Amino acid sequence: MTKPLQVVGIGNALVDVLAHTTDPDLDALGVEKGIMQLIDTARAVDLYAHMGPAREMSGGSAANTVAGVAALGGRTAYVGKVKDDQLGRIFAHDLRAQGAVYDTPPAPSSHSHETGRCMVLVTPDGERSMSTYLGVSEFLAPADIDEAQMASAEWIFLEGYRFDGPESIAAFEKAVRATKGAGGRVAITLSDPFCVERHRDDFLRLIRADVDLLVANEHELKSLYLTDVLSEAMARAEAEIPVTACTVGAAGAHIIAGGDRFHAPAAPGVTVVDVTGAGDLFAAGLLHGIVSGRDWETCARMGCVAAGEIISHLGARPEADLRALFTEHDLPVA
Amino acid sequence: MTKPLQVVGIGNALVDVLAHTTDPDLDALGVEKGIMQLIDTARAVDLYAHMGPAREMSGGSAANTVAGVAALGGRTAYVGKVKDDQLGRIFAHDLRAQGAVYDTPPAPSSHSHETGRCMVLVTPDGERSMSTYLGVSEFLAPADIDEAQMASAEWIFLEGYRFDGPESIAAFEKAVRATKGAGGRVAITLSDPFCVERHRDDFLRLIRADVDLLVANEHELKSLYLTDVLSEAMARAEAEIPVTACTVGAAGAHIIAGGDRFHAPAAPGVTVVDVTGAGDLFAAGLLHGIVSGRDWETCARMGCVAAGEIISHLGARPEADLRALFTEHDLPVA
Repeated sequence: MTKPLQVVGIGNALVDVLAHTTDPDLDALGVEKGIMQLIDTARAVDLYAHMGPAREMSGGSAANTVAGVAALGGRTAYVGKVKDDQLGRIFAHDLRAQGAVYDTPPAPSSHSHETGRCMVLVTPDGERSMSTYLGVSEFLAPADIDEAQMASAEWIFLEGYRFDGPESIAAFEKAVRATKGAGGRVAITLSDPFCVERHRDDFLRLIRADVDLLVANEHELKSLYLTDVLSEAMARAEAEIPVTACTVGAAGAHIIAGGDRFHAPAAPGVTVVDVTGAGDLFAAGLLHGIVSGRDWETCARMGCVAAGEIISHLGARPEADLRALFTEHDLPVA
Repeated sequence: MTKPLQVVGIGNALVDVLAHTTDPDLDALGVEKGIMQLIDTARAVDLYAHMGPAREMSGGSAANTVAGVAALGGRTAYVGKVKDDQLGRIFAHDLRAQGAVYDTPPAPSSHSHETGRCMVLVTPDGERSMSTYLGVSEFLAPADIDEAQMASAEWIFLEGYRFDGPESIAAFEKAVRATKGAGGRVAITLSDPFCVERHRDDFLRLIRADVDLLVANEHELKSLYLTDVLSEAMARAEAEIPVTACTVGAAGAHIIAGGDRFHAPAAPGVTVVDVTGAGDLFAAGLLHGIVSGRDWETCARMGCVAAGEIISHLGARPEADLRALFTEHDLPVA
């Protein structure tokens, strides 16, 4: 299947505000460690006022994945909502500068919400604790979905986080119909165990009807199937999804596809600085492998090597030349 | 002399937009390597559209110095103009979060110019090439100078770059009068050889009348005195300035004070990633030493160790714990 676009990601368009902190300071700020929490404007203002000096980098889970696929040479596009403000222009610039198509019309400067941002507090162990002010990204609506673009995609990649929002499920349904109607396939990431809690029924409905590839970590997959046993969750996934990719932290990743199971170890020799974006870049490497027609074990290894790059530095967009890194790891580059 | 503030910096309030690039791409972008060029709005838009994915960090030369002094535990304030926009709020946050006082009223959102920014392109050799859109920072005026704050400062630190602007020299003169009238002292950084070209007469007039400490690199000092011979420039400086600190790149720094000369080597074991902010953090370490009453050799070493931290990573604000770093280098911390 050769189409103009290989991967179109849809999700929350966010700018990350990254700062180092300590565990006691994280407690003092009232931020729960290791997860993503949604916060309102008042909390965003208060938290920002109390956090240390920061730096800003474009983020957003599916946008990070799209940036990773683009960095690997893939033909990609992204759909997500920013405002016509300085952070929105930064977000658009960084995605386009990475080589991705980004045409979602920004909300006008008169909109009541600003471009969304994610305050990422990184502790010395490399764990990230995220407080997300969705801003205008929450207002993604069916009108933002260009059916012709969806029809031109081999894969669409839906971000689980974006199920938090009034019109977004309708937007996803529109995207899925347009993609499937043109012979394309649908991937979804579960994003976060708490996100799964909030949207389990919607996730399962979509998964059973339309999903060709599920990307999750072990905690999300267990949450989806309400079990504490990973092998049980994987068996449940296998029974209803063509392909499931499940990351297991330092143990690498599993892929379950066509009745077979494959495993890849985590990338060797990586010093963890900041795990922000690990899952996003795993998905990027995996999708790069899939659209390049690689075998499942290679796809899994590609995911792990891309994830290894992103956790070796602060921020969730690739810094190293991912293609050169793949070559170093004896992975084929299209 | 104990006053409420030790160092008050005055300069261009800028947010840095940092991206890695290659030497051929730098040429293609039409950016001259290793210097700071002022650009207008049209050029800023065009350059940004053609540069790669970036990250944003608060910058501004004197603001970096103030952030460094604050990171070392000093009592500092900063004066510089942002707009009431997203980048302006980021700039203000980062400075205050570092512990500095920052009270300059932002220009209202109706102002024709945005918060200024500096596009910093970093080549693999660690050299940075800067294209600065001054934005609203150019409009710093005498009204922005709080004479009571100046009077409460042991030192004011004037950024040479800020001589580019209609009302700024008047602002500097007001600041100098208020500081000197209350027994404070005046430091100035020359900022850039081209900046010296543009403002040599103003610099020399200020230096001869009021400057107690000149901070420069060898290129700037030679440009100031129109000579190719560093020793000659240093002799000229010695004849008319109480203290001159001159950095000489990998060879460290010299201080000429009270008829004596002192030297400190560059910090050992530093891998150069990005030289942005090297001079700014040298000034921070130096001023920390001065306000802590250290001897000149220690002051020079403090400057070199602080500069070594900043060139070891991308961006011009300190990442490491500077106080811990000083202790590692057997430097006293107040």
